[in-house]
Order: sequence, then structure tokens, then C-alpha cells
Amino acid sequence: MKWAVIATWAMAENGVRIASKMLENEESAADAITEGVCDVEDNPSYHSVGCGGRPNRDCRVFLDGGFMDGDSLHFGAVGAVEGYRSAVRIARSLLKGDANNFLVGSGAEKYAEANGFEKRDNLTEEGKAIWQAEKDRLKQLSAYDGHDTVCFLAKDQKGTLCAATSTSGLFMKEEGRLGDTPVPGSGFYADSKTGAAAATGMGEEIMKGALSYAAVMYMKQGMSAMEAAQKAVNELDKELKERNGYAQPMSLVALDKEGNIGVGTNVEFTFVYADEKTEPAVYTAVPLDGKTVIGKRM
Amino acid sequence: MKWAVIATWAMAENGVRIASKMLENEESAADAITEGVCDVEDNPSYHSVGCGGRPNRDCRVFLDGGFMDGDSLHFGAVGAVEGYRSAVRIARSLLKGDANNFLVGSGAEKYAEANGFEKRDNLTEEGKAIWQAEKDRLKQLSAYDGHDTVCFLAKDQKGTLCAATSTSGLFMKEEGRLGDTPVPGSGFYADSKTGAAAATGMGEEIMKGALSYAAVMYMKQGMSAMEAAQKAVNELDKELKERNGYAQPMSLVALDKEGNIGVGTNVEFTFVYADEKTEPAVYTAVPLDGKTVIGKRM
Repeated sequence: MKWAVIATWAMAENGVRIASKMLENEESAADAITEGVCDVEDNPSYHSVGCGGRPNRDCRVFLDGGFMDGDSLHFGAVGAVEGYRSAVRIARSLLKGDANNFLVGSGAEKYAEANGFEKRDNLTEEGKAIWQAEKDRLKQLSAYDGHDTVCFLAKDQKGTLCAATSTSGLFMKEEGRLGDTPVPGSGFYADSKTGAAAATGMGEEIMKGALSYAAVMYMKQGMSAMEAAQKAVNELDKELKERNGYAQPMSLVALDKEGNIGVGTNVEFTFVYADEKTEPAVYTAVPLDGKTVIGKRM
Repeated sequence: MKWAVIATWAMAENGVRIASKMLENEESAADAITEGVCDVEDNPSYHSVGCGGRPNRDCRVFLDGGFMDGDSLHFGAVGAVEGYRSAVRIARSLLKGDANNFLVGSGAEKYAEANGFEKRDNLTEEGKAIWQAEKDRLKQLSAYDGHDTVCFLAKDQKGTLCAATSTSGLFMKEEGRLGDTPVPGSGFYADSKTGAAAATGMGEEIMKGALSYAAVMYMKQGMSAMEAAQKAVNELDKELKERNGYAQPMSLVALDKEGNIGVGTNVEFTFVYADEKTEPAVYTAVPLDGKTVIGKRM
């Protein structure tokens, strides 16, 4: 494939269209996935990313984001950031430089302010209403909802692979909670010599197996993107069930250096894919006997 | 080995003595490494962990810590926490539960306050003096000093492996900066069925290869702890040098499920080891032609 892009969840469909046009136009993977993720961040009808994200226990929306350049292995990440438009843009800006690439909380907000990143109150009336309606019920729960991170992986026409992620995290999360989304190796990983991977689902579970790094390592050891993504998810799912009796939702998308895709998941989920021969479309992925059954949404 | 413990840097010597006695006395790996790390956190003469830690750019001391239980793969982590005695104790308390296991910034501090963790101003007169003396010089630098994380790995007499980490992070770091220390998979990883690993050095570099997870995966695939630790560090070091022209300092300690140790490093560093037949002692590790040369401090 000259270029390819894969993203998590049907909400990424328009973003994949945007990224596809850019990749076809020989723009960089980094620029294409930034625009793809931003399209989701800016849409208030999606409740797990950016504007309109579901609030935490105190009815505040905090964002996490990550970005990795597969040529240099440099990454940038931000976590627990409130009041800014785009977690992914701030994360991407941090990948330059040798230190301070992962910033959280008030420090990340001060960095964003000092560097002129656009501000935005991401708490919508709809977000507030969801919080109001559910807070008494959900404060009792140990299981959570709303962990749909948007992840984009792309290969551009120069052969560079990049990964980008963004989320508002778990609905009703504690203040300061990080999931896997800003965590290199767990939420995302990209290596232009091998492949890239990114995860969505329950971040606390995904971090127990450094899921994105695991999939890329399996590709490095010779597996296809599909085998690698399935093996990474299936192994962690099995280990967690054996040890703890259950495993929470985890889904992984992968892309190898040729542009072949991989999908591993222990729950039904949706993803979006496009390459120079394939129009952007939404697909479903369902786990069945250790394999991923992929269907096209008609 | 019935039990074994390995820790990063000579500053861990007394903590390893404490942990050794506990492990010999059939106490848990979790308790032993907690006490070991706390001994370092409480000693103001060590300038990269807990009390006496080197301050950030604003002359404030922020702590990061991580903890992982190799039986369940559960972990707890805190980052960018100011004003508390022990990052590792707060991190360890977070490993129970299915969500909110990784807390940063003001949220982590609120959690610590609500759960009665002991407060402490970790900025010492010596820390202030170091900051005062160095601030003008170091604000210009892109290279940093003082990234000596204390990491403890132990196997107890029940066969459980645990990992614990704590640091005040880079001297002169930006507010909100996280290194690898609180990041599962990069700063630490433990799996009682296989082995454990933990890292010290330049966190931004270590996270580019999920170094602790990589070493444990190599053990899972059949390598000894020594081979796995060396391969993880050497591969990442080589990739970074090829891509970027340099690699920053990275050191890794590992322990397999039998209690055999592994050490990989691209710089000279020190570690402390003990088991039921070996008295606690400080060793040096020096990289030479892709291998680690280990010497005992006489």
C-alpha cells in the first residue's frame, strides 16, 4: 500500500476521510492523523473525546492524548488537561526535544497556555445532563462506561508510520486519572521499520500488558499485523481471566509497514479503514475463538 | 532461590537489608519492597527520590511512583505529586480496584489527602541550595541530571514477584513532567509466572521501548533474566542511535521467577542484590560490547 489509515470506532469515519485525502495528496502521516483525531475532538456528539466528552465525578472534562513518530520513536503525551480544545495537538507539539515529553495536570495546562494552544470548555449541556442523570447510579459502580478512545494510525507515501490518540477518559473517573491513552507502549506505539498499534477499552487493563508495544514487538518477530494484534489481546485477556477471573474490554488496531491492518479485541467494536485502493468505511470486529471476525457496516 | 531482591543504585543498600530480613522472615514481596523503597524516600541525603529530591524549574519537589503485583498484574501509580512523604505507598494503595489506578497531579494529591497519607515537604535546604546554584546554568540545557530512580524487585517465599519504583524525577523538570517511573511497562513490570523488571535513567528514552515490559516478554520467550535485560536495553539503544544519532542513559534490572537476576545498561550504574545465600551488597554494572560487566564494590 502506498498509504493507509486505520482508526478506532465509527466516530472516526469523517476523520479518516480527511486523513485519506491528505495521504493521497502526499501529506505526512503526522499531519493526516492530527487532522483526523481533531475532527473527532471537535464533534460534540461524540461523548468520549474532546468537546462533549463525558465528565468526571466532579462534572469536569479532562483530556488525555498521545502522539508518536515511528521514524525517530519520539513521542509526546498529555494527561488530565482541562480547558483546551485538542489534546492531540498539545501532545504532538511535545514530541520534539529530549525531555519533558509527557506532561500532566496543571503543568500540562501551563505549557498549553504558554504555547498558545486554543482553549475550550469541553463540558457541553448534553455532557452535564448525562452526568446529572447518572451520577447517583454510577458513583456506586466499580465498572465504568464511556472508554472509547479515538486512535489513528497511518502510513504515508514516504513510508513513515505515526500514531495519535485522544480521549476524555472514563465517565465519572476520579480527578487525575490516566488511562492508557497518553501512555506510550500501552495506548499507542509506532515504529516505521515495523508497524504501529493503538488501543481502546479499559485503560487500566490495557496497561497490564503494554498492549500496543506487545503487538509491534510481535510484528518485529515476524507476525502479520493481524496475528500480532490478536495475539497481544488474546494473551493478555487469557492471563487476566486465569489470574483474576475476568478481563475488561480491550481492543487494538495495528498497521504494518506495508500498510496491512490488524485488529484484536475481546469485545465487539468498530473501526474505520482506508488506503489508496479502498474507500473509507466502517467495519465491525467481533472476537470468535481467538480470531477477529471482521464485517463491513452496510 | 527461596527469595531474592534487587534494587537500583547504591542508595538502595540499606533498603535491601531491610527487605532481605523481611523476605527471610517469610513476609511478602509487596511489603518488603515497600519498606525498601520507603527507606530511600525517607533519606534526605539522596537527591533523586522523596525527601531531599532535586526540585523542578520552580524549585518545587514533585514525586512519581509505581507498584505492580506479579500475581494479578494489577498496578498502582502516581505522578506529579507534591507534599507527601511516600510516592510508593500511595501508588501501592491504588493497585486494588478495576479503575483509577493511575492518578496524577491535583487528583492524586486529593486522593492522598482523603486517604490519610502522611504529608511532608520534600524540599530540603540542600535541595534549595542545589537549585539556586544550578538554575541559571541548567535552564539553558537540553540534557538533564539527577534521574536516579529507586526500583525494587523481589521474589518472596510464596513465589510472588513484585516491582516498586519512586523518584523525584529530573532536576529542573517542567511542572507536570512524568518520566517512566510511574508508567507500567516502561518503568516497571512484574509477572510472577515469568519475571519482573524495572528501569532507571532518562525516562523519555526508556518509554520509547517499553523497556521493562520488553525484558519480561523476552524472559517469557525463553531468555534468562540477564539475556532479556541486555537485549531490551541494547536493542533500544541501537535503534535510537541509528535513528537519532544518540541514546540517553538507560539501565534495567530484572529478576526471573527462580530469583536469577539480569542487568542491562548503556552507562555505568550501580545496583544492590541479596538472596537467602547472598548478603546484601552493592555491585557496579558497565556496558561492554553488548554485555554487562558486573563488579562488586569492595
